[in-house]
Amino acid sequence: MKKLLAEFFGTYWLVFGGCGSALFAAGIPDLGIGFAGVALAFGLTVLTMAYAVGHISGGHFNPAVSIGLWVGGRFSGKELLPYIVSQCIGAILAAGTLYLILSGNENFAIDSNQAGAFASNGFDSFSPQGYSMFSAFIAEFVLTLFFLLVILGATDKLANGKFAGLAIGLALTLIHLISIPITNTSVNPARSLSQALFVGGTPLSQVWLFWVAPILGAIVGAAIYKNLLQKNK
Amino acid sequence: MKKLLAEFFGTYWLVFGGCGSALFAAGIPDLGIGFAGVALAFGLTVLTMAYAVGHISGGHFNPAVSIGLWVGGRFSGKELLPYIVSQCIGAILAAGTLYLILSGNENFAIDSNQAGAFASNGFDSFSPQGYSMFSAFIAEFVLTLFFLLVILGATDKLANGKFAGLAIGLALTLIHLISIPITNTSVNPARSLSQALFVGGTPLSQVWLFWVAPILGAIVGAAIYKNLLQKNK
Amino acid sequence: MKKLLAEFFGTYWLVFGGCGSALFAAGIPDLGIGFAGVALAFGLTVLTMAYAVGHISGGHFNPAVSIGLWVGGRFSGKELLPYIVSQCIGAILAAGTLYLILSGNENFAIDSNQAGAFASNGFDSFSPQGYSMFSAFIAEFVLTLFFLLVILGATDKLANGKFAGLAIGLALTLIHLISIPITNTSVNPARSLSQALFVGGTPLSQVWLFWVAPILGAIVGAAIYKNLLQKNK
Amino acid sequence: MKKLLAEFFGTYWLVFGGCGSALFAAGIPDLGIGFAGVALAFGLTVLTMAYAVGHISGGHFNPAVSIGLWVGGRFSGKELLPYIVSQCIGAILAAGTLYLILSGNENFAIDSNQAGAFASNGFDSFSPQGYSMFSAFIAEFVLTLFFLLVILGATDKLANGKFAGLAIGLALTLIHLISIPITNTSVNPARSLSQALFVGGTPLSQVWLFWVAPILGAIVGAAIYKNLLQKNK
Repeated sequence: MKKLLAEFFGTYWLVFGGCGSALFAAGIPDLGIGFAGVALAFGLTVLTMAYAVGHISGGHFNPAVSIGLWVGGRFSGKELLPYIVSQCIGAILAAGTLYLILSGNENFAIDSNQAGAFASNGFDSFSPQGYSMFSAFIAEFVLTLFFLLVILGATDKLANGKFAGLAIGLALTLIHLISIPITNTSVNPARSLSQALFVGGTPLSQVWLFWVAPILGAIVGAAIYKNLLQKNK
Repeated sequence: MKKLLAEFFGTYWLVFGGCGSALFAAGIPDLGIGFAGVALAFGLTVLTMAYAVGHISGGHFNPAVSIGLWVGGRFSGKELLPYIVSQCIGAILAAGTLYLILSGNENFAIDSNQAGAFASNGFDSFSPQGYSMFSAFIAEFVLTLFFLLVILGATDKLANGKFAGLAIGLALTLIHLISIPITNTSVNPARSLSQALFVGGTPLSQVWLFWVAPILGAIVGAAIYKNLLQKNK
Repeated sequence: MKKLLAEFFGTYWLVFGGCGSALFAAGIPDLGIGFAGVALAFGLTVLTMAYAVGHISGGHFNPAVSIGLWVGGRFSGKELLPYIVSQCIGAILAAGTLYLILSGNENFAIDSNQAGAFASNGFDSFSPQGYSMFSAFIAEFVLTLFFLLVILGATDKLANGKFAGLAIGLALTLIHLISIPITNTSVNPARSLSQALFVGGTPLSQVWLFWVAPILGAIVGAAIYKNLLQKNK
Repeated sequence: MKKLLAEFFGTYWLVFGGCGSALFAAGIPDLGIGFAGVALAFGLTVLTMAYAVGHISGGHFNPAVSIGLWVGGRFSGKELLPYIVSQCIGAILAAGTLYLILSGNENFAIDSNQAGAFASNGFDSFSPQGYSMFSAFIAEFVLTLFFLLVILGATDKLANGKFAGLAIGLALTLIHLISIPITNTSVNPARSLSQALFVGGTPLSQVWLFWVAPILGAIVGAAIYKNLLQKNK
């Protein structure tokens, strides 16, 4: 139960901090934090929570990561569903809190016809810079694949494991530095679901890609690490 | 006594570095550091002082943090008041030094009718982007709650404690990346008090929120960590 | 074989993440990550992969680094060629993946007459800010020389070796903060080759400098560290 | 002798990287790294070299730091002068290399009547934002004082010493985030001397302040740490 609460709070923090920084601070003229600031924020949510509750739950905060760790032999299958449910509940409540705060600003409105509305993910005309579904799929697949290589490698018994929280958090920053313009960056089905639920419309109808591509990428990445790279099989 | 001096210098550095970077460097056209640079500066004040004097005083630099650590069972109640007094004195002297340096620039003046004047916190028309009192309260409450989760988690006996200074400092960076546009970011009553004292007017009359919301958030966060997440009770 | 795969994936990640961030995210008006974001991305590719697969292959991801480590007595000569081949294949496949993703954007085209096209390196009129061949050579030579000082120093038996991945990754960030305007920053022959192959034209004919200068710099840097600085000869 | 070479290379890197990033990359329209990028670059020069050669020379790279460490009882007086000479030679040669590279750009010229020319430090009309001599003195004094608190604290036997390179490097980043607009940031007499020598004119005649204020700040900071904060006297 402590594990599930840790995943709940960690995923809440990921969505509240990552999507929140995008919604509150990214686009302010002259002073705004831009895509680089949002990338840093997403990474720091994971870095901070990995050191805070990693010793409790392992610090996944992401259904694709939980699935990848299971494929990689680092996580038991029977915990998989409860973890994913906790993550999704945390993400949705975080999105609700963001909505509540934004409602206290008279300029706030969600336009479900605009790319990236409420920090949602999307492709084609809902990609921030107009990338196709195919481009979006490749990007999310490759990025999650490498995210799992970093996670499984940095937490390998033979690795310098105390730095895993740093490496994994900053890997998420890197992933956002690359791909916010392509899909607004998911690599995390819970983060995509929570934002899409509040937007509805096309972003909600496109959310399948942000479950399928990250999960496939995580599975392939974990299989590569376990079978081709790991020394201590 | 060494503990109180360490808290004095640490909180001086937090206000001098965090608010100083905002006042001197944030808004310069083209080259300025913007909200992201200020967020980094605030976090680095805590990161640097945590490694410098954390072994002396524990490295709180924030009345809400001291109260949260007390609620979480990590800090003795009898030291609470001296810590908070030292923190506030450090913050006020830092604000005075900033005032002194700024006075050597002919363009300097504090306009107490302007949102964020002298790096002060505020809500409604004194929020940098016009967020309501309710939004400000929720944001400060939630952010300080999670700040305490990170602090108590990262310094847990079972955690990877050597990284606590890194995780806690970067948590403060993250908090600023999210919320400068909402309240100019407090999560620290001493930092809010020192700037409001120099501005007066509405920012001073609003300073109560930046004591109440962070302290309540810290109490709830500490209670959650101690009762729901901590393994080694 | 695991070593070569680790170098393959690491160099793929370096090019995909570093050049990818430049191509997708650097120049977007108002929100783009700029040169500083690209610098951070390059560094984080190495930081993340150093902690992920450094225990497998040593984490070179760069022919100049492999040669420097060989000169510095840290890497066996017989592994040199296979490492370099793996690195170049990883880089080229990453460039291909970037090309594939960019093709899904209707605004995409490579103009081989433009400085920095497809994140290629160059000098004279192909330097982002018009630096001469001589300036480009000096910059690449000095930067790779110091890159090797950092690598050999941070991984010295007498050093604080667990931080090597952090120091080396952030050294690459620093190198990019300095020199993107000069050459678009190489210090890595594999990264230069992969981008030049897709651009052709002048960038391909200039790629020799981005093999010669970094490799010479790496050799001199390694010789300095081994002969003048290292204590444990 | 290895110690002096380590200080030579470290200070060369500090000036080449810090001032170089300012000269090459800070002001480029839209994509430039700005003051925040320069702040990061300065900090990373120290972070990287601290982990690379800190085990050889202690990693000062700054005459004020060497003097402060001597006052704080961490460094022998007889090594003081050779360290400072090595640091100044390294800084001057780095400035010369920057001059050489910049000469390969047809737009390059040093205008010794312009504030911050060739990354020089200054006050009054040679302060980037027009701060007075008094403001400049206070800023440089306070910042170097705290720099020494961080250095002496983070390297204290009772502290978490392996993180000292990280904390000290990022302290220099923080210092630059605060004060580039005030003095172009010195806190390092060697860095000020090298740039002033190439500019001449008013910046050279003002260089005294960037020796006096940082050295006084370092002495006071070291005395505070040793006498008021340090536990293990």
